[in-house]
Amino acid sequence: MIKVGIIGSTGYAGQELVRLLLGHKEAEIVWYGSRSYIDKKYSEVFANMFEIVDDKCLDDNMDELASKADVIFTATPQGLCASLVNEEILSKVKIIDLSADFRIKDVSVYEKWYGIEHKSPEYIKEAVYGLCEINREDIKGKRLVANPGCYTTCSILSLYPLVKEGIIDPNSIIVDAKSGTSGAGRGAKVPNLFCEVNESIKAYGVTTHRHTPEIEEQLGYACGEQIMINFTPHLVPMNRGILVTAYGNLKKDYTYEEIKAVYDKYYKNERFIRVLEKDVCPETRWVEGSNYVDVNFKIDERTKRVVVMGALDNLVKGAAGQAVQNMNLIFGLPESMGLEQPPMFP
Amino acid sequence: MIKVGIIGSTGYAGQELVRLLLGHKEAEIVWYGSRSYIDKKYSEVFANMFEIVDDKCLDDNMDELASKADVIFTATPQGLCASLVNEEILSKVKIIDLSADFRIKDVSVYEKWYGIEHKSPEYIKEAVYGLCEINREDIKGKRLVANPGCYTTCSILSLYPLVKEGIIDPNSIIVDAKSGTSGAGRGAKVPNLFCEVNESIKAYGVTTHRHTPEIEEQLGYACGEQIMINFTPHLVPMNRGILVTAYGNLKKDYTYEEIKAVYDKYYKNERFIRVLEKDVCPETRWVEGSNYVDVNFKIDERTKRVVVMGALDNLVKGAAGQAVQNMNLIFGLPESMGLEQPPMFP
Amino acid sequence: MIKVGIIGSTGYAGQELVRLLLGHKEAEIVWYGSRSYIDKKYSEVFANMFEIVDDKCLDDNMDELASKADVIFTATPQGLCASLVNEEILSKVKIIDLSADFRIKDVSVYEKWYGIEHKSPEYIKEAVYGLCEINREDIKGKRLVANPGCYTTCSILSLYPLVKEGIIDPNSIIVDAKSGTSGAGRGAKVPNLFCEVNESIKAYGVTTHRHTPEIEEQLGYACGEQIMINFTPHLVPMNRGILVTAYGNLKKDYTYEEIKAVYDKYYKNERFIRVLEKDVCPETRWVEGSNYVDVNFKIDERTKRVVVMGALDNLVKGAAGQAVQNMNLIFGLPESMGLEQPPMFP
Amino acid sequence: MIKVGIIGSTGYAGQELVRLLLGHKEAEIVWYGSRSYIDKKYSEVFANMFEIVDDKCLDDNMDELASKADVIFTATPQGLCASLVNEEILSKVKIIDLSADFRIKDVSVYEKWYGIEHKSPEYIKEAVYGLCEINREDIKGKRLVANPGCYTTCSILSLYPLVKEGIIDPNSIIVDAKSGTSGAGRGAKVPNLFCEVNESIKAYGVTTHRHTPEIEEQLGYACGEQIMINFTPHLVPMNRGILVTAYGNLKKDYTYEEIKAVYDKYYKNERFIRVLEKDVCPETRWVEGSNYVDVNFKIDERTKRVVVMGALDNLVKGAAGQAVQNMNLIFGLPESMGLEQPPMFP
Repeated sequence: MIKVGIIGSTGYAGQELVRLLLGHKEAEIVWYGSRSYIDKKYSEVFANMFEIVDDKCLDDNMDELASKADVIFTATPQGLCASLVNEEILSKVKIIDLSADFRIKDVSVYEKWYGIEHKSPEYIKEAVYGLCEINREDIKGKRLVANPGCYTTCSILSLYPLVKEGIIDPNSIIVDAKSGTSGAGRGAKVPNLFCEVNESIKAYGVTTHRHTPEIEEQLGYACGEQIMINFTPHLVPMNRGILVTAYGNLKKDYTYEEIKAVYDKYYKNERFIRVLEKDVCPETRWVEGSNYVDVNFKIDERTKRVVVMGALDNLVKGAAGQAVQNMNLIFGLPESMGLEQPPMFP
Repeated sequence: MIKVGIIGSTGYAGQELVRLLLGHKEAEIVWYGSRSYIDKKYSEVFANMFEIVDDKCLDDNMDELASKADVIFTATPQGLCASLVNEEILSKVKIIDLSADFRIKDVSVYEKWYGIEHKSPEYIKEAVYGLCEINREDIKGKRLVANPGCYTTCSILSLYPLVKEGIIDPNSIIVDAKSGTSGAGRGAKVPNLFCEVNESIKAYGVTTHRHTPEIEEQLGYACGEQIMINFTPHLVPMNRGILVTAYGNLKKDYTYEEIKAVYDKYYKNERFIRVLEKDVCPETRWVEGSNYVDVNFKIDERTKRVVVMGALDNLVKGAAGQAVQNMNLIFGLPESMGLEQPPMFP
Repeated sequence: MIKVGIIGSTGYAGQELVRLLLGHKEAEIVWYGSRSYIDKKYSEVFANMFEIVDDKCLDDNMDELASKADVIFTATPQGLCASLVNEEILSKVKIIDLSADFRIKDVSVYEKWYGIEHKSPEYIKEAVYGLCEINREDIKGKRLVANPGCYTTCSILSLYPLVKEGIIDPNSIIVDAKSGTSGAGRGAKVPNLFCEVNESIKAYGVTTHRHTPEIEEQLGYACGEQIMINFTPHLVPMNRGILVTAYGNLKKDYTYEEIKAVYDKYYKNERFIRVLEKDVCPETRWVEGSNYVDVNFKIDERTKRVVVMGALDNLVKGAAGQAVQNMNLIFGLPESMGLEQPPMFP
Repeated sequence: MIKVGIIGSTGYAGQELVRLLLGHKEAEIVWYGSRSYIDKKYSEVFANMFEIVDDKCLDDNMDELASKADVIFTATPQGLCASLVNEEILSKVKIIDLSADFRIKDVSVYEKWYGIEHKSPEYIKEAVYGLCEINREDIKGKRLVANPGCYTTCSILSLYPLVKEGIIDPNSIIVDAKSGTSGAGRGAKVPNLFCEVNESIKAYGVTTHRHTPEIEEQLGYACGEQIMINFTPHLVPMNRGILVTAYGNLKKDYTYEEIKAVYDKYYKNERFIRVLEKDVCPETRWVEGSNYVDVNFKIDERTKRVVVMGALDNLVKGAAGQAVQNMNLIFGLPESMGLEQPPMFP
């Protein structure tokens, strides 16, 4: 039984980790960390857990936690994990960081886009980018995993085969992404109030969103060159779900079957990536509550572009689900353990 | 392994049965019945099941089904199950009917409120009312179970201890219920369009809703007399969830502790009924996707009434979840098998 | 041209006042008060007003305001209006208070339910309760009007004819009310975040909500005795709208026509109260954005109760619209001026 | 007083026409056409109009209507207006067609994208494309106006200054658009049910949506050449609103001020186009219920692209509001008459 500690267990991603781990046969949560709710019963913060979780919230004491847990999930704001991690801790415990601290290899890029100093750059190189379907082998046994961002997971997995195989010009890529509101976190802010979000849609972070360099770095590895893309996130009045609509210029004419074969080459055997049937568009409702990513594409013969679409649940494959998938890889468990539930609809 | 057939598998309750049974270790779906989608792949109707369910939809052939399945769930409009059931079928297979056909013991009451003739009244007596927490022992081994309605499950379980113990005047009961829109079914009707339901709330079926006599009958058994209540359902712009707010006149003065003790007497050991802590109101978000019913009460010392509240997921405890719970009881399995997942939030 | 000052113009009710007054031919806003946003452009707080309102937000200086305005609307938390009002101010300017400070005649009742000391009880007697359809004549020319609460407006207008004419036992009244989330205000609180409200419904303030004594007082005047009722508000995942479902015991048997005649007696000529046709239930979507209250009733011959329903827009007839209606009455303008727009759907 | 007939008055756009025209001082509705609801009271179809509109729905008799009305709005499916119009009718009455029949000048393009034969191509040339801010002078006095599509109005107005002034390469344009569900119409279809739309987002009509050639044609006029773009619409779980996010390659480096000046050149004096302040993103909530289009842009210096955003209410500026604006232009009334109300929030 893997002993799990969660730092930041009272955010939406933290709570989703709890939900998923309660259904995981080989994992047991031993630490519900939450600075904001220390000593409060977890089930008072999230009443869905009433009579299920009896624990109280604890402080973010990573030293103590390192000696009690086999793995720590940090579902915390940027900067915290980097400020806590050290050799002693890493020698005792695996860390799966859901923040951005160890996702970007070039520390200057991180510091520029995030506007904070990185407190432990010496571990960036060691950290593996935990996009399971791409870096599966590298993740196994690792002690520090950078769990990818929600938008980035959806964007990269949607575009990866096309970039990897040189089907599209990577610098022509435009990613127009739409997210449910749980992606904005549980902080008490006016713009996230029900009446402000409901019945509206908006773009935000236009040209400046922090997931941009993360997508660029990973897709850059796929095509072997540095690339620059446009990424625009939007806030949608729904709880969960990310939809990515991406556009790329085709390098030459392709048939549907040719591009389908490219997707199948990479994803045919992937448990959690579903390449939909011809002309079927991904919809977030069909992945809700699950670890699936649904992807598909449509060739525009008129403009010589391909429109790529991907849908996932931002709290599962976009955060907690992928983190559990990473845990399974690290500890040599079946990759889908605890993640088998079908999507819940409606 | 229990072989399961579902008639009406492409309604919302039918699909929820599929979702739950896919996670049930001792059950296997062998028949996806759906008159509307015969020969269509199930995953084309519900794309959440893509790459999970490969079956096609089949006709409602109960004779054939009876020889292939151990249990049949009928998630169909009123009247269908009663028109199909017969001795030969019941000799081969268990039936759990999610419609109202066998819920009401007095056939004239059924025919009056539902406006249709009952086609097999001879089985009404045999059928057991599958409200598991109340009729647990009667359900075990039975071959015909009438799965309770969504509103009725929530209403009865919220009020049962008070009526059973004579705490309130049963004829003073007023049940004001609120339901998510999946309760209205998947039929293509203008009043259920997004723009008609969204941003609005309304009462419907005022004084005439068919769940009224069902609640009256069951609460009548609890207090040993025929009773009459008011029941008013409302349509709420959300997918899932039922909230019941019920009012009753206290027969004498009671303390919080006295009434709490009554609830604990009946529900303390119930896996799926959570009596909340003092002053905590049930909210549908805390039970979504799960088989839980959250109940609580508040004494109004000024008016000598008690306000009782209950919340459940209409598709789980209000339909498919309770049906699976009944299946478990019939076949002697642990009652919570396949129903252990915690509520999903947000 | 009436010069209008608004204290608390950056709450939802305050902003609705702005929207309505911009369309009022005889009114002009001269003061956008908002403690939280002093010196900020109003259209930065509410971008719908961009290029429409150029003013900046000002402090709550009621003395200065009294010399600049003909009427002040206070759309502020309880206690503020009572703490600011005095003889000098009232000698210069009319005040329409959207808070509860002057709604309840018995100061001890106010102080008990609101838990604060009343700072100017000497004006309670003078203040008129601004429920226009009931107190029309008393409002004309008054200098201090207590604008009714949102729930109370809907509850009282729905029940008034039945109580006034002695059709129901007033102490049997149960009001089960449902409100959109704008009623919870624009404060940054976790329970009002999109993901907390969306896809859920809950009761709150059960047996203790402050609108209870307000309803009791006004309905008490109608029947000439002190009464006690049950009032339970619920939070609904929609922006605007209140629906009231109320229950009362009929004192004797009545026909539909008899009770309809009672409603017509009081409301037939009311511009803003629509008694719906037989069996049509009020729905909040049909009044959104307008000053209408839709009411109807249904007799339950089985239980000898009547179910009364009312729907209004909590920000219009439940707050700003009624406040403008009061302003029109005070200044001798046509009562519906600025309030003529039909409801907006969808 | 202009006498107005509406054919298709019981769709969402038709009903919005009714709402707006009821507030128009110089217009009077004399004909509520609706094939589906002939002889039914209009207020039974849309209960917001109870006690406001007493008329019954009438058949689509354009001949009779032509002799009773000064102007006819056709808010009907594609093909109907083209099949009804003829010289006799056009000699008597102005027609503002909200369908696509007369929007596209090249009849073969129309027939290809819409898949139907055009029944009166002889009037295509005469018809003026009623995008008021671009074709204002041409619209005045015309007898046949093609009211632009909802997506197209938003897309064209967002991009027009950049294309007209040669700032971007028009063939690089990608328009990613998001619409509320009223754009899908009031037909009873499963995909538009509340539970299907709520809590989800999807793209549809990818590379094939009919508004594509309309945008291409109009932007082609602006730059003086035939162009091809990508246009992808998405369905968003909200009632009203369209947001367009568009991308274009800058032909050279531009500063914010330079591009702002281009927008101001065309829109500074436009009553209904609001160019927002620097870095403020349009949001559909800020235009709801109004005839405004909010636009803004952001230069991406890294990728040499510009991201353009536009927001409008699809039922107002995207349909009925613009149709009224066209009516005002045709009849020489002030262009904003009946359209002055500020956006309603929340």
